[in-house]
Amino acid sequence: MSTFLEQGTRFSLSDPTLLPNSAGYLWNRKMMIHVNCQGYVVAQYMNPEPKKYTHVPNLAATSFMQPEQPYFAHHPGRFFYVRDDETGELFSAPFAPIKTQLDSFEFQPGLTDVKWVVKHSDIELVITLTLGEDEAAELWNVTVSNTGTTQRKLSIIPYFPVGYMSWMNMGAHYDASLNSIVCTSITPYQKLEDYEKNKHLKDMTFFYSDMAPDAYETSLPRFEGQGGLHNPSALQHKGDLSCKEACYEMPTCAMQFKLDLKHGEKKALNFVFGPALNKQEIQQIIDAHTGDEKDSATRAYADYVSSGVGVIEIETPDDTFNHFVNHWLPRQVFYHGDTHRLTTDPQTRNYLQDGMGMAYVQSEATRKVILTSLSQQKVDGEMPDGILLTPEATLKYINQIPHTDHSVWLALILESYLNETNDLKVLHYPVVWADDERPSSVLEHMNRAMIYMCEARDHRGLPFIAQGDWCDPMNMVGPKGKGVSGWLAQALSVALQKWVKISRKYNDEALIKQFESTIEQLATISHEYLWKGDWYARGITDDGVTFGVPEDKEGRIFLNTQSWALLANMPSAVQKQKMLTAIDEQLDTPYGVMLCAPAFTAMREDVGRVTQKWPGSGENGSIYNHAAAFYAASLYAINEPDRAFSVLRKMVADPQSDTFERRGQLPVYIPNYYRGAYYQYPDTAGRSSHLFNTGTGAWFYRMVIEEMLGLKGCEEGLMIDPKLPSCWSELTVKREFRGAQFHVTYRRLPDIREAEIHIDGIKLQGSVIKKVESQSNYRLRVDLPLT
Amino acid sequence: MSTFLEQGTRFSLSDPTLLPNSAGYLWNRKMMIHVNCQGYVVAQYMNPEPKKYTHVPNLAATSFMQPEQPYFAHHPGRFFYVRDDETGELFSAPFAPIKTQLDSFEFQPGLTDVKWVVKHSDIELVITLTLGEDEAAELWNVTVSNTGTTQRKLSIIPYFPVGYMSWMNMGAHYDASLNSIVCTSITPYQKLEDYEKNKHLKDMTFFYSDMAPDAYETSLPRFEGQGGLHNPSALQHKGDLSCKEACYEMPTCAMQFKLDLKHGEKKALNFVFGPALNKQEIQQIIDAHTGDEKDSATRAYADYVSSGVGVIEIETPDDTFNHFVNHWLPRQVFYHGDTHRLTTDPQTRNYLQDGMGMAYVQSEATRKVILTSLSQQKVDGEMPDGILLTPEATLKYINQIPHTDHSVWLALILESYLNETNDLKVLHYPVVWADDERPSSVLEHMNRAMIYMCEARDHRGLPFIAQGDWCDPMNMVGPKGKGVSGWLAQALSVALQKWVKISRKYNDEALIKQFESTIEQLATISHEYLWKGDWYARGITDDGVTFGVPEDKEGRIFLNTQSWALLANMPSAVQKQKMLTAIDEQLDTPYGVMLCAPAFTAMREDVGRVTQKWPGSGENGSIYNHAAAFYAASLYAINEPDRAFSVLRKMVADPQSDTFERRGQLPVYIPNYYRGAYYQYPDTAGRSSHLFNTGTGAWFYRMVIEEMLGLKGCEEGLMIDPKLPSCWSELTVKREFRGAQFHVTYRRLPDIREAEIHIDGIKLQGSVIKKVESQSNYRLRVDLPLT
Repeated sequence: MSTFLEQGTRFSLSDPTLLPNSAGYLWNRKMMIHVNCQGYVVAQYMNPEPKKYTHVPNLAATSFMQPEQPYFAHHPGRFFYVRDDETGELFSAPFAPIKTQLDSFEFQPGLTDVKWVVKHSDIELVITLTLGEDEAAELWNVTVSNTGTTQRKLSIIPYFPVGYMSWMNMGAHYDASLNSIVCTSITPYQKLEDYEKNKHLKDMTFFYSDMAPDAYETSLPRFEGQGGLHNPSALQHKGDLSCKEACYEMPTCAMQFKLDLKHGEKKALNFVFGPALNKQEIQQIIDAHTGDEKDSATRAYADYVSSGVGVIEIETPDDTFNHFVNHWLPRQVFYHGDTHRLTTDPQTRNYLQDGMGMAYVQSEATRKVILTSLSQQKVDGEMPDGILLTPEATLKYINQIPHTDHSVWLALILESYLNETNDLKVLHYPVVWADDERPSSVLEHMNRAMIYMCEARDHRGLPFIAQGDWCDPMNMVGPKGKGVSGWLAQALSVALQKWVKISRKYNDEALIKQFESTIEQLATISHEYLWKGDWYARGITDDGVTFGVPEDKEGRIFLNTQSWALLANMPSAVQKQKMLTAIDEQLDTPYGVMLCAPAFTAMREDVGRVTQKWPGSGENGSIYNHAAAFYAASLYAINEPDRAFSVLRKMVADPQSDTFERRGQLPVYIPNYYRGAYYQYPDTAGRSSHLFNTGTGAWFYRMVIEEMLGLKGCEEGLMIDPKLPSCWSELTVKREFRGAQFHVTYRRLPDIREAEIHIDGIKLQGSVIKKVESQSNYRLRVDLPLT
Repeated sequence: MSTFLEQGTRFSLSDPTLLPNSAGYLWNRKMMIHVNCQGYVVAQYMNPEPKKYTHVPNLAATSFMQPEQPYFAHHPGRFFYVRDDETGELFSAPFAPIKTQLDSFEFQPGLTDVKWVVKHSDIELVITLTLGEDEAAELWNVTVSNTGTTQRKLSIIPYFPVGYMSWMNMGAHYDASLNSIVCTSITPYQKLEDYEKNKHLKDMTFFYSDMAPDAYETSLPRFEGQGGLHNPSALQHKGDLSCKEACYEMPTCAMQFKLDLKHGEKKALNFVFGPALNKQEIQQIIDAHTGDEKDSATRAYADYVSSGVGVIEIETPDDTFNHFVNHWLPRQVFYHGDTHRLTTDPQTRNYLQDGMGMAYVQSEATRKVILTSLSQQKVDGEMPDGILLTPEATLKYINQIPHTDHSVWLALILESYLNETNDLKVLHYPVVWADDERPSSVLEHMNRAMIYMCEARDHRGLPFIAQGDWCDPMNMVGPKGKGVSGWLAQALSVALQKWVKISRKYNDEALIKQFESTIEQLATISHEYLWKGDWYARGITDDGVTFGVPEDKEGRIFLNTQSWALLANMPSAVQKQKMLTAIDEQLDTPYGVMLCAPAFTAMREDVGRVTQKWPGSGENGSIYNHAAAFYAASLYAINEPDRAFSVLRKMVADPQSDTFERRGQLPVYIPNYYRGAYYQYPDTAGRSSHLFNTGTGAWFYRMVIEEMLGLKGCEEGLMIDPKLPSCWSELTVKREFRGAQFHVTYRRLPDIREAEIHIDGIKLQGSVIKKVESQSNYRLRVDLPLT
């Protein structure tokens, strides 16, 4: 069913309906495109905020991408109708809108392209999409072959619907000098001041062909007629497209190419599709991506993507896992870190965690994230809810809701950055404050961030939650300023522990002592106020109600307060065992570990927004992969590598497994969630959100490198401390680290009792390879006991 | 093709695709529904703002209804699939989504219901929609008959798609105790304070059946499958619906009824569909509209609609015109006046003009509009941009943009109200101010409104335009506070003339003199600054550029500055002739008179927003019926009844005329515009906006009564001064006036030279019937010379 290519994966299916919503995705610095295997598409670009350039045929909110995005006949897509002009027989590629049963169908989401190979009625179409490096423009190639024995007269009709652009003004026409269909619109506005902003918006969508079309259509109503997209009126009775313009009708881009193909003959068509400010810009985009420039544009994009390859290459007994970790995982980490999820005001915690992942991809980006974030910190130590990345950006949506956890992530990103680079100088780098232009060192910024968090606690010493922490959904626990977060008590401890470790050398002893005493205190009060039954409660509300406790019928146990208690090393051995048992019994499922259980089925007014979400979706009891990654990290922390691997492994949809079809997702990214509420809604559990924006990738990648493979940087060099799954008896890894290349072979041997490490044939004393030299190659042999 | 029914119109078509977007509409105090003849629907209700309860299958902005609303396969609709369970043959009624060629198709938009009669394959469906009086709930009746000679086993499957309700939470289930499919959702929010508001929103959509279904489906993906709505997977292979619930899937309401019908047998199904807060409310709605309550609910709605019948009934030689004026026109006026276009903050000019129309339907509503508006006036005389109708309402959208014309409409509504009621006491009624609780008389309010407008003028005496007047689209003429409006110079004169006439008896002579001198001055300066070539310019920009002049390539001539110059009696006889010639040559078209010409094809930055609209749509050179109505009024004012009638007549799409198909609209309402730009885009000119919110109806109705039929109220009684089209030689009219009934017969006679009026057989001296007695019947004979 699937094979792994050098540059991606090929899925061969007799029937594409088996994977109705599987998709690949591509992005560049300006845009993102999510390409469904049937041809449906969600594309967004920055101008300067996220914006769509194809629309549903109705007014739609310009909004962030949604989980479980539904598709329907008129959903934006990129479709190619193929008509035999002698018989009138019609089908569409890749599949929709006609959805004819094809002779064969291949979908190949690649690292730098997305490709289909479709065969039907002795015609083969190879359809390829790629992008340029730095332009919001799709580059399409369609190669049509006559694989039959007779000559064929065909019409190939690319149909790229543009949809309802604007109620104020929309239309489309064919521009012969551009060889393009140009769809025009004006973003609606009412306030005069918006006119000046709107002037700079790319209100055009264009479709360029490198070959002049024999006919074209610019209007959806004329193209579709009463026939419907499954049988467009314009294509019935062997008719040709109208070659008319669309006057305040829903614009569409359709061109007709009449091909006369001999047996075995093929013909390639090239298209460019995207938004533009004006016709000059269209011309520039065409010039930069076609003709002689085509190859260099393709190369430039490939170079861009390969600049995010990451620092490891693994060869384990698990092919799917290898392929995912070698290709798709660093690519997902790079997407997040390089585009900031296509927002101008990323949530602070997202920005920092995405930056954490970049430590293992492009560590200079991590440095930039640290310095940018701290430059928006206030002198009192408080971090903002979102980080502004452009001069015009403002805090929007969830960034207007006060959360209390932002500084936790500062300690984590700094740890990753230092592990990977050992760039300790950064601690002394001067950074301004949001409310004071006089710079202070990163060290000072970090100290104030930690102190601010330590002070934002109640009389018991528990941290206030305000209207949320980590994930955003608990907005009613602490709006009165009294409610506290159990998770944040633990996360603060983790952050302080990491910061103490990093800063011990550079900070006053008194301050370190103060931090250490807070760490102690947090453990004590967590035990006192949060340990309920066999696990830690999630928090205590404004009115003093402890929740996430055995007495609760819904939201009885939360994964995060177990994971972070473990990460903070709070529970005793007995407590640990109880927690793991509770997780296994209440949260684990065949599809992964749920965030909380039982999912809320009704509003609980002292907990808030999470309980308004559909049970098993979003944060309400879903298999929320970001939290599952935290849990895996905590399992590594308590030396449970098999459990940890199992948690990670379930995140990667496996085409060979039973659960694959239920998930409906190809293993090319980790989605933010799989549906949970497994014991409440077993029929829908496991379904993918199909949303690839998630902090999971950064944690997953870091864990594979530093914990599972145990190739973690430290001040002295590279520490070797693997925690491999016991089922793996041999594997090899290439690890790039501080400019050096490590070629590592792991073996399990029956006759040793503890790990033995050989470097270039010489047995290593201890577990740290010191004085790593840049540009050098090291051969490492790690021999491990059988377990 | 069409026949007129007592309660509506019947359209019989062999092929419904001839009228793809024709629609009827219904409303009650809570909701509005626009029902396309194919089954597509736009429905909104108030809760407290306008809100949709069916959605496109994607995130859609909650927005006012758009002109030229596009429909597509998954657009919300109310569809009935019919399947022969023995053969599997499938079709849908009324037409979409399958769009099978039917044996016959009838669409009957009525005054209190909308009905279809569809025949196919020896099955007849009669589908009827009506509403209750005071509830957002649709009442559907479907009667299925076997008209063939054999027994039939059928499945009838009503399919009411609900669409993408919310990304936060959506689902659907069948509730057996309610015999309803209940779709649930939670309106998404991020800010805590929105939770309290959202709690009161009706987040449910329900579908009730009076007969228990044999099966049901609640999920769109499951219903449609890969087959598409034209061939839903759930209905293929004679299968039955799944009877499963929808868990965070797009909800849909589909029920399956298996009918075993003998030759000639029929079966009726009844459904209720609408939004609800909770299940208790669903039960209440069902109880109030079904079983024993059904008939009284239907009667209550019919009573409601008939309370808006209006004050005339005409029988002229023009059947379409009669039907429109007797039924659809007062209904459209009533819709506007009673619902305020389903907004909580109507624009002041809309609210006042809609209220003006109500003078001829329910004059007590007009009084309320006058008093409500004036209570929101400031003590300095300024009127706000919108009138707030509920305590929670706020000024939104266009009401945040400063316009300068609001008080013009006060004089016009007052004139209509007094014409119709002679309720002169209203002038002395005490009304509070927006910024002062001490009340003043309506007279004082009106004086200050007029004085405020008189003072808001520049050194030349021309009124400032700020960011707009009348229609909203010229936001860049005067934002700096200098630009002036030619139209408003004339409209102010009209308002002052009307106010002087009304208030002469009650005002100081000095004030009247001041108003009269302003009227004089406005005529002089209009001539001096605005008369350019053969017509009046539209205005002068902030930078002193006069526009709407012969030198302009686009926007050369504006209709409004001609119409209102005529209404203000400004031009000389020679000027009048030049203006009419210019209008005939540049603005008139077979479909009506355009608002301006040539339409703008590009932005003109000193004019503004109008030029951003598609040429021929909206206010940019369309046949904007509200302005055409002004023009007709001005033609009556200069005694050009044939021209005036021609302008009015073109607004009513005539099923017998050549232009009918182009318009694509049934003559059941006047839309806000027909596409114009006739000389630039002849192919699309004439198309209807399909938007029935417009000030046109009020003006049209008033003109028919007071000008064309010449049955205008005055202080003494009823003035008879008809201006009939010359082609009508005989007609009769019933006119209700101040409680009396007038039965009027008009005849053109060859042997008289001026009008002769007989009342109850006695010749009237002068043209005023004095001392009209309530409850009386008068027989009037109006004999007119041949032209």
